[in-house]
Amino acid sequence: MMIPGPTFLAESTLRAMSRQMVSHRGKETGALLTYCIERLKEVFRTENDLFILTASGTGAMEAAIANIVEPGDKILCTTCGKFSERFKKIAEVFGAQVIEVSSEWGDAIDPEKVKVALDENGDVKAVTVTHNETSTGVRNPVEEISRIVKSHGTLLIVDAISSMGGDHIPVDDWKIDFCLAGSQKCFAIPPGFSFISVSDEAWEVIKRTKRKTFYFDLVSYKKSLEKTPPQTPYTIAITLLYALDDALNLMFDEGLENVIARHHHVAKLARDGIKNMGLKLFPVREEICSNTVTAVKIPKGINDQEFRQKVRERGVVISGGQDKLTGEIFRIGHMGRVTEREINITLNAIRQALSELKFPLNEEAIL
Amino acid sequence: MMIPGPTFLAESTLRAMSRQMVSHRGKETGALLTYCIERLKEVFRTENDLFILTASGTGAMEAAIANIVEPGDKILCTTCGKFSERFKKIAEVFGAQVIEVSSEWGDAIDPEKVKVALDENGDVKAVTVTHNETSTGVRNPVEEISRIVKSHGTLLIVDAISSMGGDHIPVDDWKIDFCLAGSQKCFAIPPGFSFISVSDEAWEVIKRTKRKTFYFDLVSYKKSLEKTPPQTPYTIAITLLYALDDALNLMFDEGLENVIARHHHVAKLARDGIKNMGLKLFPVREEICSNTVTAVKIPKGINDQEFRQKVRERGVVISGGQDKLTGEIFRIGHMGRVTEREINITLNAIRQALSELKFPLNEEAIL
Repeated sequence: MMIPGPTFLAESTLRAMSRQMVSHRGKETGALLTYCIERLKEVFRTENDLFILTASGTGAMEAAIANIVEPGDKILCTTCGKFSERFKKIAEVFGAQVIEVSSEWGDAIDPEKVKVALDENGDVKAVTVTHNETSTGVRNPVEEISRIVKSHGTLLIVDAISSMGGDHIPVDDWKIDFCLAGSQKCFAIPPGFSFISVSDEAWEVIKRTKRKTFYFDLVSYKKSLEKTPPQTPYTIAITLLYALDDALNLMFDEGLENVIARHHHVAKLARDGIKNMGLKLFPVREEICSNTVTAVKIPKGINDQEFRQKVRERGVVISGGQDKLTGEIFRIGHMGRVTEREINITLNAIRQALSELKFPLNEEAIL
Repeated sequence: MMIPGPTFLAESTLRAMSRQMVSHRGKETGALLTYCIERLKEVFRTENDLFILTASGTGAMEAAIANIVEPGDKILCTTCGKFSERFKKIAEVFGAQVIEVSSEWGDAIDPEKVKVALDENGDVKAVTVTHNETSTGVRNPVEEISRIVKSHGTLLIVDAISSMGGDHIPVDDWKIDFCLAGSQKCFAIPPGFSFISVSDEAWEVIKRTKRKTFYFDLVSYKKSLEKTPPQTPYTIAITLLYALDDALNLMFDEGLENVIARHHHVAKLARDGIKNMGLKLFPVREEICSNTVTAVKIPKGINDQEFRQKVRERGVVISGGQDKLTGEIFRIGHMGRVTEREINITLNAIRQALSELKFPLNEEAIL
């Protein structure tokens, strides 16, 4: 399983989920919830409030939007792939007037374009940025974009669903008002949870917004967390809390910096392996390549389905392209528990599949 | 754990959750999703569409409302406790003009009152009914209410979150347009999933509604389920799907009618035991008592916290009252895998706790 989430779980995490149920409003769950949130804040490098939602990452995206948008509000959405475009769709559902700043799929968002758009539009309520665009394997320059957004006094919403934990995203240093993460990515627990941090500035806006969500109403989450014992407003997925507790312990045992360094290392290994075979990375420049997913152009003459089937026959599952990139690229996920070993197995499987399909591999790539 | 959800899990269900991740859009997940949905439809006794949401029961409530309500639409909410009142809150968030038909907490909704309200308001879009009001231990007469609602050509939304699977709720026979259920109740899997069935009539309304939700947009769920392989629009909680598969097999092995009969049997056992001790049921009439949760008045002179602590010391967790019933009632959940054995242990623990607190138990109750 080398897809960009869900990623494979540690044995201890799998075992942790076999624990019997406890009350979702009891002391035990309260203690576990508090502990996990404190540790998640360390991963997010934030002192902001942080909440665990029983929903996929898209739920956290909806939470960020629905808590601050009223019909007609201007939201600037930066788009460069499937997931960044999702923000635009969500903002539109909630009646926002969307200003779009886009780049070609495969390229990163140009901070300068964000500046121009913000200069032209004086009253933008929030800017959305996808830190790690999973559909194209591109990492966006959140730090640079943040400087521009914050100098305009605008809220910054960052989707770090598929990179938080596996890349350097210091929420407070970068002044991110809403930062989102997903459970089945770098945290290596099953899908079903998403995490969202909320800054003081964001709270100010939330409080004066007529919120168009009940399930994702962040004020309820805050109130419930302040109860004794701390809890969620609606029943939390307890099994995933057991898994999260275990997975966070594993991350802290390894050391957060080491976890990120490992992600950097395996990402570089994946890119180098791909280039050595004579394949081309999909992102237009290597410095914008994602730390958690590598997107690769499918060479002319190679059929996507056939190629990935041959890789699968070697026991490795990789992903294809999404939407307009279907058949154009393939993607290797390297997030969570991935090490050199899995990357090497994956590269070998790709190499063998290509060789069978008579792709002219670079000589140095042939073992 | 004898609270009204989460309820305890079978050993096989706990073990099922230790399986490694697979792709959420792959063939294996597609087959599992299809299988679980087909079986859930049998439990719901419906040929309507049915979807699995990665969200707690409240998410399914929001889905039913957000897919059909536009600002100013009239929604008739029947209220008789905390959870039925939640429908009213959700409808208001989405801009509905709420018409409330209520009964005292502890009583059931009077269908005649629903008729009067519908006669007075010609253009009600939907009526909400909580089949099993978990906060008061009351079961509402959905079949009778349905006859009235459907004769007015209005949609019927039924929250069967804490009763589906443990009570007789034939969705098609009762013409329920949206029927909701929760995973951690009678299905005996962990919290994190909710289920929602959608009738053809409901689809007609959904299609002409400007929907104010993205995460719970039922049209997306329908489209994704029609893909090859069948999938959900946003990543499903795969571990819970493993658990659901196992739990449904257990229910079908026992026989759906037998599962309901067992719930009836243990519910009666709980009520009889309570009455034998000289305690009083909270619902105003025994025929409106829930099949899955028994609410009991706390006798004068007995402190709720102290009493439940003494019960807990005997290894049994029961629930207190919620909101305005805090300190007034206690509640025994008997849903999911509960058998005579657990009821007897629970009744014994209650009896001993009361005895220690010098409550004058009925003579026949003293073993």
